[in-house]
Amino acid sequence: MAAPLELHPDRLFPADVGLRAIARRLYEPVADLPIISPHGHTDPSWFANNELFPNPSALLITPDHYVFRMLYSQGIALEDLGIATTGPGGKPVEEDPRKVWRLFAQNYHLFSGTPSRMWHDWVYRDVFGLDVVLSAETADLYYETMDAALKTDAFRPRALFERFNIEVIATTEDPLDPLAHHAKLKADGWGRKVVTTFRPDNVLDPDYEGFEDNLEMLADITGCDTTSWLGYLDALKDRRAWFRDHGATSTDHGHPTAFTADLGPAESEALFHTIRDGGGTAAERELFRGQMLTEMARMSQDDGLVMQIHPGCWRNHNEMVFRRFGRDKGADIPTATDYVASLRPLLNKFGNNPDFTLIIFTLDEDSYSRELATLAGHYPAMKLGPPWWFHDSPEGMRRFRERTTETAGFYNTVGFNDDTRAFLSIPARHDVARRMDCVWLAHLVAEHRLPEAEAAVIAGDLAYNLAKRAYKL
Amino acid sequence: MAAPLELHPDRLFPADVGLRAIARRLYEPVADLPIISPHGHTDPSWFANNELFPNPSALLITPDHYVFRMLYSQGIALEDLGIATTGPGGKPVEEDPRKVWRLFAQNYHLFSGTPSRMWHDWVYRDVFGLDVVLSAETADLYYETMDAALKTDAFRPRALFERFNIEVIATTEDPLDPLAHHAKLKADGWGRKVVTTFRPDNVLDPDYEGFEDNLEMLADITGCDTTSWLGYLDALKDRRAWFRDHGATSTDHGHPTAFTADLGPAESEALFHTIRDGGGTAAERELFRGQMLTEMARMSQDDGLVMQIHPGCWRNHNEMVFRRFGRDKGADIPTATDYVASLRPLLNKFGNNPDFTLIIFTLDEDSYSRELATLAGHYPAMKLGPPWWFHDSPEGMRRFRERTTETAGFYNTVGFNDDTRAFLSIPARHDVARRMDCVWLAHLVAEHRLPEAEAAVIAGDLAYNLAKRAYKL
Amino acid sequence: MAAPLELHPDRLFPADVGLRAIARRLYEPVADLPIISPHGHTDPSWFANNELFPNPSALLITPDHYVFRMLYSQGIALEDLGIATTGPGGKPVEEDPRKVWRLFAQNYHLFSGTPSRMWHDWVYRDVFGLDVVLSAETADLYYETMDAALKTDAFRPRALFERFNIEVIATTEDPLDPLAHHAKLKADGWGRKVVTTFRPDNVLDPDYEGFEDNLEMLADITGCDTTSWLGYLDALKDRRAWFRDHGATSTDHGHPTAFTADLGPAESEALFHTIRDGGGTAAERELFRGQMLTEMARMSQDDGLVMQIHPGCWRNHNEMVFRRFGRDKGADIPTATDYVASLRPLLNKFGNNPDFTLIIFTLDEDSYSRELATLAGHYPAMKLGPPWWFHDSPEGMRRFRERTTETAGFYNTVGFNDDTRAFLSIPARHDVARRMDCVWLAHLVAEHRLPEAEAAVIAGDLAYNLAKRAYKL
Repeated sequence: MAAPLELHPDRLFPADVGLRAIARRLYEPVADLPIISPHGHTDPSWFANNELFPNPSALLITPDHYVFRMLYSQGIALEDLGIATTGPGGKPVEEDPRKVWRLFAQNYHLFSGTPSRMWHDWVYRDVFGLDVVLSAETADLYYETMDAALKTDAFRPRALFERFNIEVIATTEDPLDPLAHHAKLKADGWGRKVVTTFRPDNVLDPDYEGFEDNLEMLADITGCDTTSWLGYLDALKDRRAWFRDHGATSTDHGHPTAFTADLGPAESEALFHTIRDGGGTAAERELFRGQMLTEMARMSQDDGLVMQIHPGCWRNHNEMVFRRFGRDKGADIPTATDYVASLRPLLNKFGNNPDFTLIIFTLDEDSYSRELATLAGHYPAMKLGPPWWFHDSPEGMRRFRERTTETAGFYNTVGFNDDTRAFLSIPARHDVARRMDCVWLAHLVAEHRLPEAEAAVIAGDLAYNLAKRAYKL
Repeated sequence: MAAPLELHPDRLFPADVGLRAIARRLYEPVADLPIISPHGHTDPSWFANNELFPNPSALLITPDHYVFRMLYSQGIALEDLGIATTGPGGKPVEEDPRKVWRLFAQNYHLFSGTPSRMWHDWVYRDVFGLDVVLSAETADLYYETMDAALKTDAFRPRALFERFNIEVIATTEDPLDPLAHHAKLKADGWGRKVVTTFRPDNVLDPDYEGFEDNLEMLADITGCDTTSWLGYLDALKDRRAWFRDHGATSTDHGHPTAFTADLGPAESEALFHTIRDGGGTAAERELFRGQMLTEMARMSQDDGLVMQIHPGCWRNHNEMVFRRFGRDKGADIPTATDYVASLRPLLNKFGNNPDFTLIIFTLDEDSYSRELATLAGHYPAMKLGPPWWFHDSPEGMRRFRERTTETAGFYNTVGFNDDTRAFLSIPARHDVARRMDCVWLAHLVAEHRLPEAEAAVIAGDLAYNLAKRAYKL
Repeated sequence: MAAPLELHPDRLFPADVGLRAIARRLYEPVADLPIISPHGHTDPSWFANNELFPNPSALLITPDHYVFRMLYSQGIALEDLGIATTGPGGKPVEEDPRKVWRLFAQNYHLFSGTPSRMWHDWVYRDVFGLDVVLSAETADLYYETMDAALKTDAFRPRALFERFNIEVIATTEDPLDPLAHHAKLKADGWGRKVVTTFRPDNVLDPDYEGFEDNLEMLADITGCDTTSWLGYLDALKDRRAWFRDHGATSTDHGHPTAFTADLGPAESEALFHTIRDGGGTAAERELFRGQMLTEMARMSQDDGLVMQIHPGCWRNHNEMVFRRFGRDKGADIPTATDYVASLRPLLNKFGNNPDFTLIIFTLDEDSYSRELATLAGHYPAMKLGPPWWFHDSPEGMRRFRERTTETAGFYNTVGFNDDTRAFLSIPARHDVARRMDCVWLAHLVAEHRLPEAEAAVIAGDLAYNLAKRAYKL
C-alpha cells in the first residue's frame, strides 16, 4: 500500500516541545502574508499569455536542474529524462513525458533529505491534492491526476499566481530582450505584479558566448555606437531606462568572481577597446568585468536601480554535458570566493552612500561570518542576499542566520528570494524560508536572547517587509 | 508602555529541559569566580587616576566600534554619533551626548540577535539597575539614570573593578608608551591587579603609520642604536624587560597574516637595512614582519613572556572612513587566513618547547577544525586563543568548541579573553563565555560523552584556571 | 573511589526525549549488523599469523597517533611514550610498557570530549570488561587486566575478528609489497574476509622517500621496464592485477592536493622522463602526480577497481619529529584544499561513466557544501567518502551530514570507513558512525522532513549496504 503523503503543520520546527511552541506562534501570523518574489527566473510569457502548461514532466522535471542533476549523478542518462540535446552524440531523447515521469518516480528515494523532496511534496499535496507518496507504484496515478488538472483553467498561470497570493514577482531578462511580454503585462494592468530585472551578463562579460555579436545587437536596439566606450555606456544606460519602464527596480550580475575595479576613464576606455573585439588576456577580461560592475554601480547612483551580484560559480564544469545539452544543466559548481579584496574598489567608490543598495549573494558559506556579515555590518550600501541556490534549503538557511545575525543583525539582510523557474514550488520555497526564520527566532527567544514580541516583528519583516523595502517593490 | 528589561537566569541555556538543568548545575559554581582578564584594551589611566567617567554616550557609544559600525551600516552618519573626525569633509560632529544617546536608542532594534544587545542589556540592568528595555521612548530615562550614577563614587573605575570581582586585568601598550599609569598603579599597590602587555606592532611592522619615526623614538627611549639590526633587537629586549617590570606576562602581535619566517642572521640584518628607511617591496615588508614574529618568539624563550598572535584582519578597509575618522572605526574586515604554511617556520624553531607558550587567535573560523585544532593538538608550545572579535558571541563560542574540542581537547585552549575597551561590559562578556562553555559541556554530558563530574572540573578550568595558568597570572 | 565506567545505551543520542526515542528506534535494527570495513590500516599479519598481541601499551598507545599527538601537545616527550626513534637526539626511549601505560593514564583527562576517549572507553568496557574509569589510580588495574586478557586465545586476532562481527576488512599495501600475508589468508580460506587495497603513492609520487629506488624495485617485481613510460604503466597494471588476485577491489591515493591532469600521451611520456631520475621542478612533480591520478582512473575503467583519493594533508609538518621519529607521528596537518579546478581534468575524462567509482575524501570541511556535495550531486562516477581522520568524530559526522545531504543526498555517499590501525576500536568506530547517522535521520524525522519508514531503510544502507555496494565487497 502506498505511504500517505502528509504535510505536517509543524514541519521544519524543532523537536523540542518548548521551542516548537514558540516557532508556531511566530510562524502563524506570517504564514499567509503575500509573497514578494524580488528575484527569480519564471517565464514572463506564462503570465502574459496565460496558456495552459503542457504536461507534468515538462513542468516539474525537464526545467528543474536540482532534479535532473541528482538523477544524473546516480547514472540516469539526461536523454532518458527528456532533456533536449543541443549537440551531437548520446542516445535518443525520450519523448514520452509519461515515461520520463515514471523514471523520476522510481528514483524518488534519491531525494530523501533534500529540499527538492520538500518542495515537490508540497506541490503534490497542496497544489494537486495528491495524498500518497510518489513512488514507482504511484507514478501513473500522479501523472494522470496532474495531467488532468493542468488542462483546467484553475491551473493557468494567472490563476495560480492569484491562488499563490503573489503580490509581485520579478523575472530576469538580458538587455537584448525586447520585453514584449512585460509590455503586454503592463497593457493588461499586470505591470506592477510582474516586473523585469536587468541582467546584462551577455553584454558585460567578454567570455559570454556571442559577446561581440551581442554588442552589435545592443547597438541596433539602442542606436548607440557600441564600438566606443562612451557609446557603449550610453547603450547600457538606455536599456536600464527601458527596463525601468517595464517595472525593473533592480539589476543582477552573475560573474565568476566578486572582483570589482575602479579604473580611471582613460584606462577604462583603453581596456574596452582591447576587449571589444574578442581580444584581451584572461586577466584583462576579468578586469573588464570588474570595472563594469563598478560602472553598473555608478549608473545605480543615478537611476536608483538596486544592484545584485551573484558571484562564485564555475559554470558548465562538465564539458560533455555542456557540449551535448548546453547551459544550466546541473553542472555548475561553486568555488571559493573572496569578497574583502574583490568588492573593495566598488565599496570604496559607492559603498558609503546609504541611498544605494548593493545586495551580495554567495555560494561560499565560509564567507558568511568572516567576510559578508562583517562587510554588510559596516558599509551603508551593502546588504546580504538570502541563502542562494544549493544553500536555499533548511540547513542552508539555518547556517545563514547562525553565521550572519550576530555581526550583521537582521536589518542588513533583505528577506527571501525564491530565485526559481519552478513556478509551482514558489509558495513552498517561501514557506520553508518563513518557517526556518521562525525557528531561528524561536531559538533566540527560548534562550532569552530576544523578547518574543520583538521576534514577532522581525518575523514579519523577514517574511514580507524587508524584501519589499530593499527591492523598492 | 515600555517593555520590561529582564536578565533571565537561564539566558543562553538550551530550551531542552534536561540539557538546561545540566547547564545550570555546571554554571552555578563558576558563575561568581573572579575574573581573569588576560588580554584587553581598557585604559590604564582609568585605574591609575580613578576619575569619574564623563557621560553615558562617551562611555557606551563613542568608544564601542561594535555599536557604531552597526548604526553606520544602516545609514547613520558617524558624525551624528559624536565620533571625532581626524580629517576634513563631512558634517559637523554632534557634541551633545544626550542627542547621541537618543539616536542610539531609536535604533536599538538593529542590535536584536547580536552580542552587543546582550552586553548592553546586562550593563543597563546589572550595573545601572534599569528595568525597562531601551527604546526611543525610554532614551531620556536611561540617559538621566546613568548620567546621575556616573557622578557617584560607586561608579569610579576602582569601585567598579572591585564590584566586578576582577582579580587581574591586562591592558595593551606599545613599546613607546612610558607606562606612567602602570608605574602609578604599581606604587598604589595595584601592580598585580592591572598589568600591561607588550604590543610592538608600531615598531615591527614597516607598514604601520610612522614606522621610521617610531624606530627613532625607540632609540631615544632605550639608548640603543635602532639603525643597526642588533641595536634594534637590543632595544626590543630592553622594552620587553621594562614591560615585564610593569607586570607584563605576555606580548601581542596584530599582523595582517600569520606569516612567520626563519632567516639566518645575515639575511635578517640585510632585510632590516632594506626595510629600515621605508624601503622594501610589499613582499619584503611581509617577510620582515614574519621574521620579527620569530624574533619575538626567540626572545620569549629567554624572558618567558607568553606570545599572542592576532592575525588576519584587513584594517581600515573603508578609505573614506579612515581618512575622515582614523583607525578602529568599525571598518576592519577579516580575511581568509592560512596557518599551516605560515606558522611553520616559527613552530619548527620553537614549537617543540613545552615551556614556551604561543597563543593563536583567528577571525577565520574555517581554520578551527582544519588547521588550528590540528596544530594545537600537536605542538607543545601552541595553544588556541578564545573566539575573537566578531566571533566573541554565543554562536561564535559554540562553533569554537564544536570545531576544536574533538581534536585539541579543552587543555590546548586558554580560557576567555574579553579583549575589550568597554569596561562596563567585562562581566557580561565573561558571563556569556562561562554560560556558553557550560552549554557545550552540558551537551557532552547529556549525550553521555563526558561524566558530569569531569565536566564540572572543566567548567572551572575554562572559567578561571586555564587563563591564569596559560598567561602566568 | 574510582569513577564507574559505563557505556550508556543512549550515548550520542540527543537530549530531547522525542528525538532520542526516534534515534533509538532507528539504531536498534542496525546496531548489530556485520561490519564492512572497506578502507583501513590494520596489519594483515595479525590475521594471517593469528599471534597474541604483545601488551596493552604496544596495542593501544604506541601505534595510535591520535593518542600520542595529544599527549605530546601537552608537553609529554614521545620517548616517554615508548615511541621508537629513527634518528639521533632526544632522551632514551621508555622500554617498560607499564610505565608508558601509567603516563597515559595520568593524562587521560586530556582526552575529555575527544573521540579517542569514546573509542578507548568502549574498548576498556566492552572488550576487556573494565568497569572503572581510567586514571592514575586505576592505571595498574587496567594494565594487569588487559595484559592477562591479551595472553588468552580469546584475544587472538581471528577470535576478535569473529567476536567483532567483521564481515570483511580491507588492509592497505603498496605495490612493492609481496602480499605474502594475503596469500596465506587466501590459502586459509580467509581471502574474502581480509582483502588488500592498492596504494601506489610510493611509486607515483616523485616526492616520496626513495621514489627512484622504488621504481627499480617495481621493475624487479614485475619484469617491466620502468625506465620507459609504457613499461612503467604496464608495471602498474601488472601490480593492480596482482592486488586484485589478493582480494583488492579498490585503489587509494594519498596526495598533497586533489590536483589531476589530462595530458596527451607524448606530453605524459616526456614528463615521465623529466621526473624519472629525480628531476623536475615542484610544479612538474605536482603535474606528474596529477597525471598519474588520471592514469589510475583510466586503468580503473578496465580493471574495475574503485578509486579513492585522500588529499590535502601536509605530512610531517614538524621537522624535528620527522627527523627523530619518522612518518605518521601525529604531525600531519590538513590544508585548505580545492576540488573544483583540481578534479576537473579527471572528471571530464571519466566522471560521466556510471560504471566507474571515484570516492573523494577531505580534511577540509569547508569543501563539503561548496564543492564536494555539488560535484558528487552531478557526476555519475563521483561519490563522497565518509568524514576522515580528525573529522571521524561525532561532531565531524554531524557536520558531514548537515552539509552534504541536501545537495548530494544519502546515495552519493558510501557508508563508513574506520580507516584505522587500532584494531580493537573498530567496532566502537562503526558504532559511533551508526549512532550519529541515526541521530541525523532522527532529526529529519522529528522535523517531518522524512518519513520514519524511509529513514529506517536509509539507516541500514548507511550502516551496511552502501559500503558493500560502493566498494564491490
